[in-house]
Amino acid sequence: MSKVSFYYFEFRGLGEGMRRLLAYGGQEFEDIRIIFQNFSEFKSETPFGQLPMLVIDGKKYAQSSAIARYLGRKYGLAGKDIEEDFEIDQVMELFTEFRLAAAAPVYEKDESLRPKKFAELSETKYPFYVQKFVEILTKNNGFLALGRLTWADFVFVGYFDCLKMLLRMPDLEEKYPIFKKLVEAVENIPKVKAFIDSAPKSEV
Amino acid sequence: MSKVSFYYFEFRGLGEGMRRLLAYGGQEFEDIRIIFQNFSEFKSETPFGQLPMLVIDGKKYAQSSAIARYLGRKYGLAGKDIEEDFEIDQVMELFTEFRLAAAAPVYEKDESLRPKKFAELSETKYPFYVQKFVEILTKNNGFLALGRLTWADFVFVGYFDCLKMLLRMPDLEEKYPIFKKLVEAVENIPKVKAFIDSAPKSEV
Ligand SMILES: N[C@@H](CCC(=O)N[C@@H](CS)C(=O)NCC(=O)O)C(=O)O
Ligand SMILES: N[C@@H](CCC(=O)N[C@@H](CS)C(=O)NCC(=O)O)C(=O)O
Repeated sequence: MSKVSFYYFEFRGLGEGMRRLLAYGGQEFEDIRIIFQNFSEFKSETPFGQLPMLVIDGKKYAQSSAIARYLGRKYGLAGKDIEEDFEIDQVMELFTEFRLAAAAPVYEKDESLRPKKFAELSETKYPFYVQKFVEILTKNNGFLALGRLTWADFVFVGYFDCLKMLLRMPDLEEKYPIFKKLVEAVENIPKVKAFIDSAPKSEV
Repeated sequence: MSKVSFYYFEFRGLGEGMRRLLAYGGQEFEDIRIIFQNFSEFKSETPFGQLPMLVIDGKKYAQSSAIARYLGRKYGLAGKDIEEDFEIDQVMELFTEFRLAAAAPVYEKDESLRPKKFAELSETKYPFYVQKFVEILTKNNGFLALGRLTWADFVFVGYFDCLKMLLRMPDLEEKYPIFKKLVEAVENIPKVKAFIDSAPKSEV
């Protein structure tokens, strides 16, 4: 049997979708949670200096969408052909855009510029993405693509609380219950639920 | 026969890789080049307000990596299994990171902050990415993944002059001839060369 380890930080963020994909796939794995402040010691062990990282029998896998796609295809959560896979990839890439826009103020090195950056993006970008995702979910039966559960849903839902925090929209799913529906659809899958129940808790 | 149109701007940038993938696949297509200043009129015709966009028999495809992956798989430039596809996806995602970091100063809304942002990224990020890509190419026989030509090479090479401009590194391939080797490997493919020779010229 393969030895599988998954490395990410002590929060759900960008790594949780992959943890849950592994759980969904019935894959036993070491769920290694690095303390963010201690990451510098570990940085050089990763392919590109960042996490998440999946390790299977010593082989390292980096880049979150690439890992999630790989696991999704492995566990039957991908499309049935390249047309269907395209639909998943397209919405995943839109999500990455959204995620990076949401995180941009926090990543701004000069702290004094953060409020302005947040105000600017709150005006120009965030409402657009929220609206697009509501549209997409509505068109897809409450999922992100193909009208059914795919690996993209795992990534989105795993990051959702982080996204709300970054957007400062704590009531996002009260306002748009379709987000809540997606979160529940993923989190109520028995193997995912079992994983969540037994995993360490964190705020986002 | 399918009617295929590809929409991008009057430069190579993020769209050229896909134009060349279509040419490589022997696909006849309308090569529609929108004048950047006129894009606002066309914006609402695209799925997410941006280009590139591929249209096949009326169906719209957006998001550059998703489109390139789709075309790559269609034309035999992908992996032979999910392990191999992962390798391509991983390096493509790293390239997207690099591309966004390179473009970040230009995308900074407040023009007065651009020089500072450029200086910061030139110190903290650009040398890291350049070094990583040199390593990756060296390890992969001059290609980005799998030691052979894949769709990722098309995207990278199509954007390469843009990247050099954004990084302000006009001598990048003199300094690292392995970049030049990759550019030539893609641009000397007969169908790609024929396309380039007949296509409108642009600086980047
Ligand atoms: N493109 C990468 C980005 C990964 C990323 O941004 N990781 C962050 C945490 S979410 C990280 O490792 N930060 C620590 C650091 O950069 O030192 C991916 O999608 O996997
Ligand atoms: N995530 C998108 C980004 C596309 C993008 O940034 N497009 C730019 C040109 S390279 C654009 O359409 N800009 C015009 C606009 O946003 O109005 C992709 O990879 O396709």
